[in-house]
Amino acid sequence: MRTFSSDSARLIAGNGIQIGRWEQYGPPGAMPFGAMWCVVPPGGRSDPDVHPETELAVVLAGAGAVEASCGTVEVLPGTAVLLDPQERHVLHNRSADEPLVVLSVYWMGGVGDAA
Amino acid sequence: MRTFSSDSARLIAGNGIQIGRWEQYGPPGAMPFGAMWCVVPPGGRSDPDVHPETELAVVLAGAGAVEASCGTVEVLPGTAVLLDPQERHVLHNRSADEPLVVLSVYWMGGVGDAA
Repeated sequence: MRTFSSDSARLIAGNGIQIGRWEQYGPPGAMPFGAMWCVVPPGGRSDPDVHPETELAVVLAGAGAVEASCGTVEVLPGTAVLLDPQERHVLHNRSADEPLVVLSVYWMGGVGDAA
Repeated sequence: MRTFSSDSARLIAGNGIQIGRWEQYGPPGAMPFGAMWCVVPPGGRSDPDVHPETELAVVLAGAGAVEASCGTVEVLPGTAVLLDPQERHVLHNRSADEPLVVLSVYWMGGVGDAA
C-alpha cells in the first residue's frame, strides 16, 4: 500500500498552473495510464490544453469549471470529467480563496466508441 | 466531454457498502481500467476485499481509513491509495455523519516493480 497526495507532491509550474506528474513516484510501468496533479490557484485558470490522450479529470478539492469545445461544466469535488482525444480544454478555478485540485488520468486510445 | 459523479450514479449494495460500477455508463472498451464508486455509510466499513487487480483508491469525500495487510492509513479527500494485487483491504468511514466516497480504479497487472 502506498499513498499519494497533491499536498505532499512536488509541483512545478506548467500549463499556466501548478502540476505534479506521477513519474516523481517512480517508473510508471505498472500503471496503464499516466497521472498528474493539477492545482489551479484561486481565481486562476489553466492555459488551453490539447493532446492525443483521452483524459479523465477527477476533481478533488475546490470549486471550478471545465471548459471544452462542446461547452462548460461547473464541477465540485467528486465529479469526474471525461475528455476525448484532441478535445481542447481549460480548467477554471471559481473560488477566490481555495485552490482547485484535480487528478488528471490520461491514456492513448479513443473514447468515441465507448465510455 | 462527459461528467460522472457518485451523486447521480446508480448505486447498489455490494461488499458491505454501496457501490456503483462504471459499466452503467456504457461499454468500458475505451478505458484501460475498470472504475467503481464506493460509498461507505457513516460509521461503516466495507467487507474485506481481495482481488487480482491492482487498485488505485482515490478519496473524494469524507474522512476514513484504508486498512491493508501492511497497516492502516488515515485518508482525507485528495489522497490516493495504491493497493497491490491480492492485497487484502478494508475501507473504514471515520465519520459518524458523512459518507466516505472513494473512486476505485483497477486493472490487471502487478505494481510490485514500479508505481
